[in-house]
Amino acid sequence: MDSLGRTDITMAKAAEAHTFLNDWMQTLTERSRSLLSRVRGRADNTDLVELADMLLSRRGEASGVALAQTLLAGYDRASAEVRLQFLKELAAKFGPDQQRLAVAIQAYQASPEAATMSALHAASEPRRQELFRRLNLAPGGTFALVRMREDLVDHIKANPDLADVDADFGHLFTSWFNRGFLTLQPIRWSTPANILEKIIRYEAVHPISGWPDLKNRLEPPDRRCFAFFHPQLADEPLIFVEVALTTDIPGAVGPLLVHDRGPLDPTAATTAIFYSISNTQRGLAGVSFGHFLIKQVVEDLKRDLPGLKTFVTLSPVPGFAAWLRRERDNPDSRLLDAEKKEILALLDEPRWFDNAEHREALEQLLTPVAAHYFLSARTPAGRPVDPVARFHLGNGARLERLNFLGDPSDKGLRQAHGLMVNYLYDISAIERNHEAFAENGEVVASAAIRRAAKELTRREITVIP
Amino acid sequence: MDSLGRTDITMAKAAEAHTFLNDWMQTLTERSRSLLSRVRGRADNTDLVELADMLLSRRGEASGVALAQTLLAGYDRASAEVRLQFLKELAAKFGPDQQRLAVAIQAYQASPEAATMSALHAASEPRRQELFRRLNLAPGGTFALVRMREDLVDHIKANPDLADVDADFGHLFTSWFNRGFLTLQPIRWSTPANILEKIIRYEAVHPISGWPDLKNRLEPPDRRCFAFFHPQLADEPLIFVEVALTTDIPGAVGPLLVHDRGPLDPTAATTAIFYSISNTQRGLAGVSFGHFLIKQVVEDLKRDLPGLKTFVTLSPVPGFAAWLRRERDNPDSRLLDAEKKEILALLDEPRWFDNAEHREALEQLLTPVAAHYFLSARTPAGRPVDPVARFHLGNGARLERLNFLGDPSDKGLRQAHGLMVNYLYDISAIERNHEAFAENGEVVASAAIRRAAKELTRREITVIP
Amino acid sequence: MDSLGRTDITMAKAAEAHTFLNDWMQTLTERSRSLLSRVRGRADNTDLVELADMLLSRRGEASGVALAQTLLAGYDRASAEVRLQFLKELAAKFGPDQQRLAVAIQAYQASPEAATMSALHAASEPRRQELFRRLNLAPGGTFALVRMREDLVDHIKANPDLADVDADFGHLFTSWFNRGFLTLQPIRWSTPANILEKIIRYEAVHPISGWPDLKNRLEPPDRRCFAFFHPQLADEPLIFVEVALTTDIPGAVGPLLVHDRGPLDPTAATTAIFYSISNTQRGLAGVSFGHFLIKQVVEDLKRDLPGLKTFVTLSPVPGFAAWLRRERDNPDSRLLDAEKKEILALLDEPRWFDNAEHREALEQLLTPVAAHYFLSARTPAGRPVDPVARFHLGNGARLERLNFLGDPSDKGLRQAHGLMVNYLYDISAIERNHEAFAENGEVVASAAIRRAAKELTRREITVIP
Amino acid sequence: MDSLGRTDITMAKAAEAHTFLNDWMQTLTERSRSLLSRVRGRADNTDLVELADMLLSRRGEASGVALAQTLLAGYDRASAEVRLQFLKELAAKFGPDQQRLAVAIQAYQASPEAATMSALHAASEPRRQELFRRLNLAPGGTFALVRMREDLVDHIKANPDLADVDADFGHLFTSWFNRGFLTLQPIRWSTPANILEKIIRYEAVHPISGWPDLKNRLEPPDRRCFAFFHPQLADEPLIFVEVALTTDIPGAVGPLLVHDRGPLDPTAATTAIFYSISNTQRGLAGVSFGHFLIKQVVEDLKRDLPGLKTFVTLSPVPGFAAWLRRERDNPDSRLLDAEKKEILALLDEPRWFDNAEHREALEQLLTPVAAHYFLSARTPAGRPVDPVARFHLGNGARLERLNFLGDPSDKGLRQAHGLMVNYLYDISAIERNHEAFAENGEVVASAAIRRAAKELTRREITVIP
Repeated sequence: MDSLGRTDITMAKAAEAHTFLNDWMQTLTERSRSLLSRVRGRADNTDLVELADMLLSRRGEASGVALAQTLLAGYDRASAEVRLQFLKELAAKFGPDQQRLAVAIQAYQASPEAATMSALHAASEPRRQELFRRLNLAPGGTFALVRMREDLVDHIKANPDLADVDADFGHLFTSWFNRGFLTLQPIRWSTPANILEKIIRYEAVHPISGWPDLKNRLEPPDRRCFAFFHPQLADEPLIFVEVALTTDIPGAVGPLLVHDRGPLDPTAATTAIFYSISNTQRGLAGVSFGHFLIKQVVEDLKRDLPGLKTFVTLSPVPGFAAWLRRERDNPDSRLLDAEKKEILALLDEPRWFDNAEHREALEQLLTPVAAHYFLSARTPAGRPVDPVARFHLGNGARLERLNFLGDPSDKGLRQAHGLMVNYLYDISAIERNHEAFAENGEVVASAAIRRAAKELTRREITVIP
Repeated sequence: MDSLGRTDITMAKAAEAHTFLNDWMQTLTERSRSLLSRVRGRADNTDLVELADMLLSRRGEASGVALAQTLLAGYDRASAEVRLQFLKELAAKFGPDQQRLAVAIQAYQASPEAATMSALHAASEPRRQELFRRLNLAPGGTFALVRMREDLVDHIKANPDLADVDADFGHLFTSWFNRGFLTLQPIRWSTPANILEKIIRYEAVHPISGWPDLKNRLEPPDRRCFAFFHPQLADEPLIFVEVALTTDIPGAVGPLLVHDRGPLDPTAATTAIFYSISNTQRGLAGVSFGHFLIKQVVEDLKRDLPGLKTFVTLSPVPGFAAWLRRERDNPDSRLLDAEKKEILALLDEPRWFDNAEHREALEQLLTPVAAHYFLSARTPAGRPVDPVARFHLGNGARLERLNFLGDPSDKGLRQAHGLMVNYLYDISAIERNHEAFAENGEVVASAAIRRAAKELTRREITVIP
Repeated sequence: MDSLGRTDITMAKAAEAHTFLNDWMQTLTERSRSLLSRVRGRADNTDLVELADMLLSRRGEASGVALAQTLLAGYDRASAEVRLQFLKELAAKFGPDQQRLAVAIQAYQASPEAATMSALHAASEPRRQELFRRLNLAPGGTFALVRMREDLVDHIKANPDLADVDADFGHLFTSWFNRGFLTLQPIRWSTPANILEKIIRYEAVHPISGWPDLKNRLEPPDRRCFAFFHPQLADEPLIFVEVALTTDIPGAVGPLLVHDRGPLDPTAATTAIFYSISNTQRGLAGVSFGHFLIKQVVEDLKRDLPGLKTFVTLSPVPGFAAWLRRERDNPDSRLLDAEKKEILALLDEPRWFDNAEHREALEQLLTPVAAHYFLSARTPAGRPVDPVARFHLGNGARLERLNFLGDPSDKGLRQAHGLMVNYLYDISAIERNHEAFAENGEVVASAAIRRAAKELTRREITVIP
Repeated sequence: MDSLGRTDITMAKAAEAHTFLNDWMQTLTERSRSLLSRVRGRADNTDLVELADMLLSRRGEASGVALAQTLLAGYDRASAEVRLQFLKELAAKFGPDQQRLAVAIQAYQASPEAATMSALHAASEPRRQELFRRLNLAPGGTFALVRMREDLVDHIKANPDLADVDADFGHLFTSWFNRGFLTLQPIRWSTPANILEKIIRYEAVHPISGWPDLKNRLEPPDRRCFAFFHPQLADEPLIFVEVALTTDIPGAVGPLLVHDRGPLDPTAATTAIFYSISNTQRGLAGVSFGHFLIKQVVEDLKRDLPGLKTFVTLSPVPGFAAWLRRERDNPDSRLLDAEKKEILALLDEPRWFDNAEHREALEQLLTPVAAHYFLSARTPAGRPVDPVARFHLGNGARLERLNFLGDPSDKGLRQAHGLMVNYLYDISAIERNHEAFAENGEVVASAAIRRAAKELTRREITVIP
């Protein structure tokens, strides 16, 4: 590795893997060799399954690295159809050995003690899990498995039988991507370009329009960005957060992203705004990084800049417009009477906010409605409707402020009629807030928001049908 | 981290952890806080168990890092007695939830399909495993868990109830220390001293007498050393191998270790001798690194020095003397008749090899006896008696040569009457050899050794009683 | 430095420097302190000169770092006018001490021996040189001095009295930026973005249109880029070369730069094309990096890709069109008669090359004329007219091929009517070629080019008026 | 460079250089080649001189790296005798071109202006300087030149004609090893062993007895060590300082170096003791690093450990015993009368300090005598007698305390009858102290020491004869 950056994956690695396989080919027995030759051309599903079986067999102990490498390369080159077939075979044929399981159950029931329990656990482990562990022997195996899971995520709705494979991936990744194995790295303008390119690509909240826009978010002294990395995915940020250092809590994202600001001396900042958090790997769905990231970043920022006292997000409200639509369409709504619905109909006009009168009327109504949305509206499962709210409240944050027209971009209007909110991370209250939310479903919110919610005459819980 | 090396763990980390905990203390609820205070004094077993429960509870989701850190620190400071109690509690109270397991078995038996199987596997997972994963959230958690396992290994003989805890550690470590997560690093005289110190400490085959001896094994251009590292244990080699580059296969270790040799130009070398392989972490017992290490080192050496054609070990025979003792003491030995036993009695004289006549007589007899020991002698389980032989043969190596008096050190005489052997790693034969050994128990050996074995009139299989 | 890249210079350094100066302020005596305060506001020229004097005095020994830091910061904040004044003062007041010099001359003439010669050399050293060395004590001092030289280069035409200051900078930089202190680094798509940004900015031959264009030059496996760096200017490439790996010598740059090519497997390449070399630091004018860069890159590429046999440039001909204009305008041209001039008049039509007939006529004429331009045309000083030719021929390369319409871009047409050429770096001929050129002014060229030159009836040397 | 450390120089580099030269050999003309062949065998002095001439010639421009490499390798392999001859030739034949110098003087005297002055400076530059700059082109050239200077330093007393060569080395090294090019690196127990080995070897003040002793000075949390490095000498510390963190100013070195101390929490420390400073490169004699090192370390420690308020040395007094001997032997001493001399005669007894009475008498007398030694005794040039005192006082430190029997080791007794002293680095007084010392020769000392000096009745200045 040179001191300027990391090794390119891309074709350099492919070439290396190619040589490596050529070397290994001569080490294999006839049977292994003929299979590998086939796979290296254009693998079909049978070949991949045969390779998987071989990898799980005794032969896999001697030639595991070569077999794993070949299977992953074969999968990578295979057509979408062959891939899906292979994933289905994983579901169908690589579960636990049922006979062994039946025996283990019997033994346990005959004598329910530590040893039989342990044997039962082992017998009930799907063979896939050992397969995945052996595939991980290959150079680049971890990343290849993450991408295989990506494929699977795309197919799972149409193929519910893949759910168990998905669960096995999830189980393994939760263990492998344990926070203890991750490192927090600052993302700067001096970060390797192949990583920055991914920041541009993966930013999901406030899209980055190109390299100058990226530079504007990284280089000014009052901006920070941090990402979690895993040692095996050195060029792939797993999740990242963008931070602005300010002297107050902003209600709109526009001023944060504008170019040609005069930047603030970071030692004069009192407030850190987390204005964007993006997961990057669909293949790691279900492995939660977010609350570890936020807490670690709060820790690190506090240590480096002792002047920072307030840690707060500026967050979108992705579920608000859809919920409000349902409420407006609901003839039995206990929340919105005819008069309110009439005012809300103004929202359907393009650029309604250019009309000062409409704007004012909507601000007066939307604020208490939004407060209600957060504090009282619930999914059928009894949880807050808004996914971002669930994330931050689950982390122990407090809903701090509602910002009318905080994001008047097309996307902001579409999903939330421009509404943005702040969640406050008060470290001294996190555990208490988390418990209130996790155990009693209580949404911890500022007094102002609680007051706003009360302004609506009727405040019963609305359930999404 | 500075460019000269890695961060010291030691007290610097302790100090940091201390600050970190102070910061977190103020973030916790009253109950958490009072428990943590107790543990930070001098934890007793009840406290540690309570902490473990809390870490597995909902509170663990919000404050996991702090709780994990506290539990590990408490364990670290606890007396040997408290530690053992805690390990026993892990065995007794942190297995699977039996009720949940019974329900899962019933559901599976009622409807044996993917979903119920999956639920059964989950229900049979000991709660310990999730506990270990959460403990791994703490900075330094992985290493702390490895050391906890070390304690356990020391106690397991006297406390067989710890076996399940041990198995859970083993299961997790096999996944976390998967070869895919390890990196091979050269160990050089320019390697950080805190790592070299561990090479000195952990060398188990041919002890290193001090820093000059270490330098003599690392610095000459015809010497190499490689180790596997895990990203979370950056200062701890997991296993390492010492290599000498030569122009022929040596029969004795002495000339390899002598100081003031004229070193060989490495590009002129034809043969790489693996003369010492040492595992370093007792806490990782059962996680196998050795054969991955050897194969990777063979690959890397071939690439860097294309002149290398032969890869061979120079290995001790740790089981030979004890096996021979038993055979000599066995009045019914079919291998050794009275005449042979008489000759072998010469071995009991100190420095028998100084007498040329005795030496010659013993050489003529010991060589075929040793050939027999490797090719035919078996444990009651039917495996070769020698543990080092089992390791290399299992890797697919071939038993190549017997070296009479290859190691006349006290240790060498005591364990094998000075015998050393070479195992040959012929990459093109590894898979075939491995299968022959793993499936048929066949010991692949050179023609010379097979001939030597035949020289003994009677060649029946001897079984260790 | 974090593992992802280098530290940002920019405001982070400014902030650090600020703190540093605050710390140092309290360490100084009253007089130093009051001067520094003034400079930290808005330095005028007198202040800077006073600081320079102080830095050269005894006080500079104790407080050199602080004084140097202050002077450089003061200069950095000063207006363009004040800066120029300061540079002029450097010329006027910081030459050698004339009295001391007169004494030294006398002593030397009285007794011309080693000691007096040495004293004479010391006495004739301008005080500026010691001043620059002391300014270099400041963190970032080297780069600040390079930028000061940049200012100077801008003013030198209008202010010939600055020439000596310029020579002193040149002398010092030649020593400090000695090739022995430089490191060659590959520039990749994984290089820190703040460095890549400079590659985009500094590319002088074939402008880079943006980040996608840059990626297209760096990421494909058959592309390489290398730069020299100096340890003190870690984020500033000093010179860089862009390389394409191919299987033949290309005559045009277009196909090399096109996007969406199918890249070549680099191990199959036989030829390395140096298609762009750019110096980046005007402040280092006169320090020659180019030939060291090319030779080192040839060495490195040969070692990594033994299949490479041919190392050749694809170069512009920046002096050709202007020289031809003069020749065409010259009524007494012995090279171009009326007939030839008439043909060449076709060049004045826009897009003349779209007309197949014109194009052919011009190709037949331009090729021998260009051969003449390289082989026979000379500046009044007797050197080849083309600056790029002088560079490569001086390095020992051979003029290999003329490529009609190799670069039909606006710039290519403007400077050379689209002509490009290849210079061949044949390592085994470099010293011989260099001597032929340096000692006898001989332009080493391929037989084809020498033949082409002979096609013109009259081949006398033309001198630029 | 791998992540574990730096590349070994030693034979690996030799091998690389070997290959490199083989490659280059084929690039050279016949004449160059035959010379290089000779030098690569066993160079004699004529060959080296011829190479030096060639390197300074035009040929050097094309083949400079190869020629420089060859000359340095030839010098390295040459006998001590040949080396000395070569150094003498450098003195005799590589000074300035005298004719050119005469012309330049004439031109300057005819018209004493900037341009002629500049030309005169250039003409008076010894050709050696350009030679050294070109030798620096070779990989490893800087270090090779430093070692060449080392040879020279050994011979200079016997060969005063080498003085000019020495001055040229000094001039160049002062520029190349400018503090702006150095980096301060902490030396830790995790520093590469090949660097630590040099710390053991170079420690000149309190010898390090081996690796455990070294570890004891580096690893405890209340110990620090820092060194300056130059980018070209990456494995060679240039100067280093050992620091102990304490809560008071110690008077003796023993307690600092004892093993098995209970270390202090570094955040509780108030005082940093610089108890050993060692230069490492004799070849860099005359390039002053020490005061930059101390000041930078003070800065860095203050930033990392804000609790540190006092920065003080614990220093030997290497000139004291010799000076006192002269004073005692001087029958006309105005400092020591017969009575005092009689008391001082007790010092000649072995282990005089075991006798409590003698010890007390000597303490009462030696303290004021030592105070006089520092404050009033002067060399014939009017400077303080003690070299360590000159160093620290010249840096702006204050003589703070005398410590009777601070170092009762053999070395300590021999050079200073066990006396040690503390110099205080009070950053706010450094510039003032430095000026007092540099301009008026005033020794800034604590009130206690000034009082002690007055206790001697007669306090006239003593001059070393």
